Amino acid sequence: METIQYNLPQSRIPRTWSNILPALPAPLAPPLHPGTLKPLGPDDLAPLFPMSLIMQEVSAEPEIEIPEAVRQIYAQWRPSPMMRARRLEKALDTPAHIYYKYEGQSPAGSHKLNTAVAQAYYNKQDGTRRLSTETGAGQWGSALAMACAFFGLECKVYMVRVSYDQKPYRRALMEVFGASVTASPSNETDSGRAILAVHPDSPGSLGIAISEAVEVAAKDGQTKYALGSVLNHVLLHQTVIGQEAIEQMAMAGEDPDVIIGCAGGGSNFAGLAMPFIGLKLKGRSQARVIAVEPAACPSMTRGRFTYDFGDTVHLTPLVKMHTLGSTFVPPGIHAGGLRYHGMAPLVSHVVDLGLAEAVSVQQLDAFAAGVEFARAEGIVPAPESNHAVAEAIRQALFARQEGIKRTILFNLSGHGHFDMQSYIAYHAGMLENYEYPAGEIALALAGLPSVG
Amino acid sequence: METIQYNLPQSRIPRTWSNILPALPAPLAPPLHPGTLKPLGPDDLAPLFPMSLIMQEVSAEPEIEIPEAVRQIYAQWRPSPMMRARRLEKALDTPAHIYYKYEGQSPAGSHKLNTAVAQAYYNKQDGTRRLSTETGAGQWGSALAMACAFFGLECKVYMVRVSYDQKPYRRALMEVFGASVTASPSNETDSGRAILAVHPDSPGSLGIAISEAVEVAAKDGQTKYALGSVLNHVLLHQTVIGQEAIEQMAMAGEDPDVIIGCAGGGSNFAGLAMPFIGLKLKGRSQARVIAVEPAACPSMTRGRFTYDFGDTVHLTPLVKMHTLGSTFVPPGIHAGGLRYHGMAPLVSHVVDLGLAEAVSVQQLDAFAAGVEFARAEGIVPAPESNHAVAEAIRQALFARQEGIKRTILFNLSGHGHFDMQSYIAYHAGMLENYEYPAGEIALALAGLPSVG
Repeated sequence: METIQYNLPQSRIPRTWSNILPALPAPLAPPLHPGTLKPLGPDDLAPLFPMSLIMQEVSAEPEIEIPEAVRQIYAQWRPSPMMRARRLEKALDTPAHIYYKYEGQSPAGSHKLNTAVAQAYYNKQDGTRRLSTETGAGQWGSALAMACAFFGLECKVYMVRVSYDQKPYRRALMEVFGASVTASPSNETDSGRAILAVHPDSPGSLGIAISEAVEVAAKDGQTKYALGSVLNHVLLHQTVIGQEAIEQMAMAGEDPDVIIGCAGGGSNFAGLAMPFIGLKLKGRSQARVIAVEPAACPSMTRGRFTYDFGDTVHLTPLVKMHTLGSTFVPPGIHAGGLRYHGMAPLVSHVVDLGLAEAVSVQQLDAFAAGVEFARAEGIVPAPESNHAVAEAIRQALFARQEGIKRTILFNLSGHGHFDMQSYIAYHAGMLENYEYPAGEIALALAGLPSVG
Repeated sequence: METIQYNLPQSRIPRTWSNILPALPAPLAPPLHPGTLKPLGPDDLAPLFPMSLIMQEVSAEPEIEIPEAVRQIYAQWRPSPMMRARRLEKALDTPAHIYYKYEGQSPAGSHKLNTAVAQAYYNKQDGTRRLSTETGAGQWGSALAMACAFFGLECKVYMVRVSYDQKPYRRALMEVFGASVTASPSNETDSGRAILAVHPDSPGSLGIAISEAVEVAAKDGQTKYALGSVLNHVLLHQTVIGQEAIEQMAMAGEDPDVIIGCAGGGSNFAGLAMPFIGLKLKGRSQARVIAVEPAACPSMTRGRFTYDFGDTVHLTPLVKMHTLGSTFVPPGIHAGGLRYHGMAPLVSHVVDLGLAEAVSVQQLDAFAAGVEFARAEGIVPAPESNHAVAEAIRQALFARQEGIKRTILFNLSGHGHFDMQSYIAYHAGMLENYEYPAGEIALALAGLPSVG
């Protein structure tokens, strides 16, 4: 029998998160205070995050210990499986070997639970009573709602309006876990009201929803804020994915030639890629590392690498990242988790350093790839993950053209069980690609702050 | 770290399905031809099933080899995990140890893929071009659609009307795999038209949908019929669950005192229970074995153990089973997979022999249990599986009352990702329990054929 699953025992759940920061050839640009434009100190973030997470944000330690209580919860689904997509290989008639790390087996259905559990744990330790957050597609919101249920925290979720309307079942899932879910922009916050005053029919965006969630945390001493991507500590928590994958690729006796992840805020991509980039920096891997973003929200491939706000209402610090401008509202593509105007500073930085490259995929190509994958492998990917699938298939077809064996590893960051409305729309021919007129991007970039 | 997952390597996927029939103290009553009322011969079933499956239906072999091609596909998710629900134990403050075998990690999201892959394989071997089937909740239809995609077979699904309307995403999932899905009763078949003529607003039932699917297969030489439960060969294919669980319980160093599965047609219950009943018959287990049915469709707890038709239009053979009468249409409870008027003859038989017992659970208790489980363990169970969860929790609370440790093992047959509408209805207070007036059951039973 051919091996399909590469499974590690519970004892091989990583004991530390691996922090790429100290190994990078150049340091990250520091985040700036939105008022003073001076580099932030830890205390500036204290209203939003427990100090333990703030310290992780700037840590120079190469390894950060995972608390035993967090590993104990990870043990329900970690180490996650690495699978070989042998039926897809046959369907593509490719000499490539296609592996995927499957994060959809977490009870939340995506990689997001890796950091949700960690953030809920540190907040519980710190005496936080409630967490507020935003969610796009709903993967992050449901992961945080679940983690809050585990630790007895209240959870308040601002869900981007377009996803809220498209995905009632995602909302229902958060409510099963006891979370309170509000469509964003909402009338509950000054930020939401300000947007609605100008755009009463706003479809919302992650940038807006972040403003609402941050505002609530900043105003309420017992509420802290939790972010599902972008920040260093969030990406750090995802590095269990890549650490496990390194061990699983060794089990398979292969070295990946290409490593692929979809990237919206950047966390699932970073989770898989950073440990391999660590190997590259040590000369122990030659892999190409590819971040795949949607053509409809092309922060890396068409944005600018500069300082910008993380949110639309400019309550957050400025960070140096690939961005389309904090007021950019992408069209309502169904890969809601990829509708963020910026990219994690750490991911932006490694792309800038040439340690990873960025490509974009159109929506219809992403769904076509997802359906092809599903028919071969059974798993229906989340629309976000379809971008990684599309690039993996493209690489496998290049390998066929060139007639060479190539080992491809991609992150299947979540399943699409709560995203079937987008598959219905795809099959009904209601989805389309989006080509930005050159002027539209230029206009958005013209509004960027001139800082740093 | 406490052990949560009990995982077996791919090499421990069972090599055979285990057939309880030859070990039972009394034989199953034979199925009868609907025309002659004489015991069926294998040829009578040949229009519907490939001979390989017909032979499994009546096999006297204690072990039946699993084809390597089927094991190769099983390898994507089998052996399935057995988990210890430690957070649920703590939430219930019970000395009981609660284990669950989790079948929701199959790409189809339930145990149904175990037999779907086997049936698609044997049909492919036999030259079948298309499979027709019925589905209630949609678990079976999506599993068969997926298996047909793997083997290049066409797939035609008659989906019970009430589920078709409640679960558009389940339908979308089947369509991703290329299946054709029709609401039942439909105008496509004589059976469907006959029902619609009398009940134009019929919510449908599994019995009606079976009639439609059987009719299509009987009339088309290239189409065969596939059933997701009830028949011996279907239950046989599910015995991988119990075989793995026996090995996993040994890993955990425990002997289950109580074994629980929900039962609609009986296949997930049988899959877990039959291998343990095999141990009981050898004196190697003392476990209580409990089949849990919905109070709204109480075939075992309030029906009669007698010969009845498997479908509403009386195209199928008569089988001896616990039944409420083949024209019984249960109220539209959301556990669509449990809305069958009968019970697998094999399950009925072991209950009749006293080797298993049957209990019923009301809908609201099932959902309350499912939400409690989800908040503790993260996994949102399918509404069907909630019945097993409810009984497991009840047993754990008995153990607390009695102050004794008890080892409980239940089958979490699938996740509820495609059933969130029923959780929305539950939270909105729109679901209710159903108490049958005594006369209503008696009336249904009065219509039973007097045979055998």
